[in-house]
Amino acid sequence: MSRLSYGHRVELHSNSAAKALLSLMERKKTNLCVSVDVTSKASFLTIIDAVGPDVCLVKTHIDIIEDFDQDLITKLQELSAKHDFLIFEDRKFADIGNTVALQYSQGVHKIASWAHITNAHPVPGPGIIAGLGSVGHPLGRGLLLLSEMSTKGNLATGLYTESAVEMARQNRDFVIGFIAMSRDSLHQKEKDDSEDFLILTPGVGLDTYGDTMGQQYKTPYEVVFNRGCDVIIVGRGIYGDGKNIDISSVQTQAKRFRQEGWNAYLKRIDG
Amino acid sequence: MSRLSYGHRVELHSNSAAKALLSLMERKKTNLCVSVDVTSKASFLTIIDAVGPDVCLVKTHIDIIEDFDQDLITKLQELSAKHDFLIFEDRKFADIGNTVALQYSQGVHKIASWAHITNAHPVPGPGIIAGLGSVGHPLGRGLLLLSEMSTKGNLATGLYTESAVEMARQNRDFVIGFIAMSRDSLHQKEKDDSEDFLILTPGVGLDTYGDTMGQQYKTPYEVVFNRGCDVIIVGRGIYGDGKNIDISSVQTQAKRFRQEGWNAYLKRIDG
Repeated sequence: MSRLSYGHRVELHSNSAAKALLSLMERKKTNLCVSVDVTSKASFLTIIDAVGPDVCLVKTHIDIIEDFDQDLITKLQELSAKHDFLIFEDRKFADIGNTVALQYSQGVHKIASWAHITNAHPVPGPGIIAGLGSVGHPLGRGLLLLSEMSTKGNLATGLYTESAVEMARQNRDFVIGFIAMSRDSLHQKEKDDSEDFLILTPGVGLDTYGDTMGQQYKTPYEVVFNRGCDVIIVGRGIYGDGKNIDISSVQTQAKRFRQEGWNAYLKRIDG
Repeated sequence: MSRLSYGHRVELHSNSAAKALLSLMERKKTNLCVSVDVTSKASFLTIIDAVGPDVCLVKTHIDIIEDFDQDLITKLQELSAKHDFLIFEDRKFADIGNTVALQYSQGVHKIASWAHITNAHPVPGPGIIAGLGSVGHPLGRGLLLLSEMSTKGNLATGLYTESAVEMARQNRDFVIGFIAMSRDSLHQKEKDDSEDFLILTPGVGLDTYGDTMGQQYKTPYEVVFNRGCDVIIVGRGIYGDGKNIDISSVQTQAKRFRQEGWNAYLKRIDG
């Protein structure tokens, strides 16, 4: 699967969000997702407008924004149209089906109404997919399962990862892929038939090698070429700590990651 | 540990939230936590005022409330003082340390400023405790780890559960206990020394036996007497689907669960 181009993989998906993302990546020639982890509406929109031309996906944590309001969502959607990217709310849903359905659709943030893609931990079992799917599938949304994590001492390994993959296989119309550190957990099965899942990988950096709270970084080449992942997720490597944002520096870093990620992809499909 | 009274266990904890909860349970003679999973501020406050006299803890999903505002928090805190209960935001944090610190302290909901207790999944590894602790520990807050879940096909079993318990043991000043289905995973160690953890158990019902999204129910007697858990968490068993709330019926059900839970506890410590 990892030797096929993004464009060729569009037809292997039935889910609209997966199709839209793969088409966009092929058209725009980028596999970069920027994670915008800042707490003010102004910084949030400034960073997104700066990186917009270089990304396929903007990853949000909408629940950390102090001055969130409906206008923020309107402006985010305008930027999505202006720059041609999709929106991924990194909510990491992790509750029982009945609760996640409410968290996804309701409350102040109404995530399902604006996020093309969201994600969930598989730990509650298949009910979490049923709950989120009851809301998101009719809207054409896509779900990623966290089958692996990037942090030190994390428990998403072994049987846990295998179970996540199995849960995804049972729900291919809504589960479009994984947050994972490599394509390995899918490899054997992908050879057997034509199933396709997107692999999005966090913890990608060029100059930094960890923080004090267990995050560990890997390079775009390692992630895309060696490990067969599809989308690199970069946050602090592009905008630092989010204070005193220097737009031209943010743009420079985004272009640098975009180029590294795309070159690794071209080498992979050419390989 | 499960043979000791709640009052005797106060001195085994250093964390202020754990001490406050155990003292309150002893004083008020209730081990009932009501989970208030409704989406309007009015219903939310109505249910809490109705069940307040019978609970030790009110469990919230603040992110499902459509018309959330600061006044809701003020009124929730007034009810907490009026009826003598603590507040547990069932956020199920599940991200890397840097992100959960922001989610806990910032955004629209500012959970750390009002929730005495919150919870987290151990899946990201110990960094999630470091991140939440950097915010909550200075405020005297307490954290519960989800070491087991009540849903069908959940992955919080075996080594996963053991790792959660080990992570808690390394962070006893902030991690006050578990969301779990029994005390079994702690048993051997608790005999060896005087460690004490609170066990809070969801999925408790009297008349209902499951929903269509994987939730499975157990009785208060099973949970408190047979399984040695400390707090029973009841939601839909008390207020139904949250529509057309009948206050007297809600109060009747709350008193019924309170009595069942307390009787099972008395039998346990007398046993």
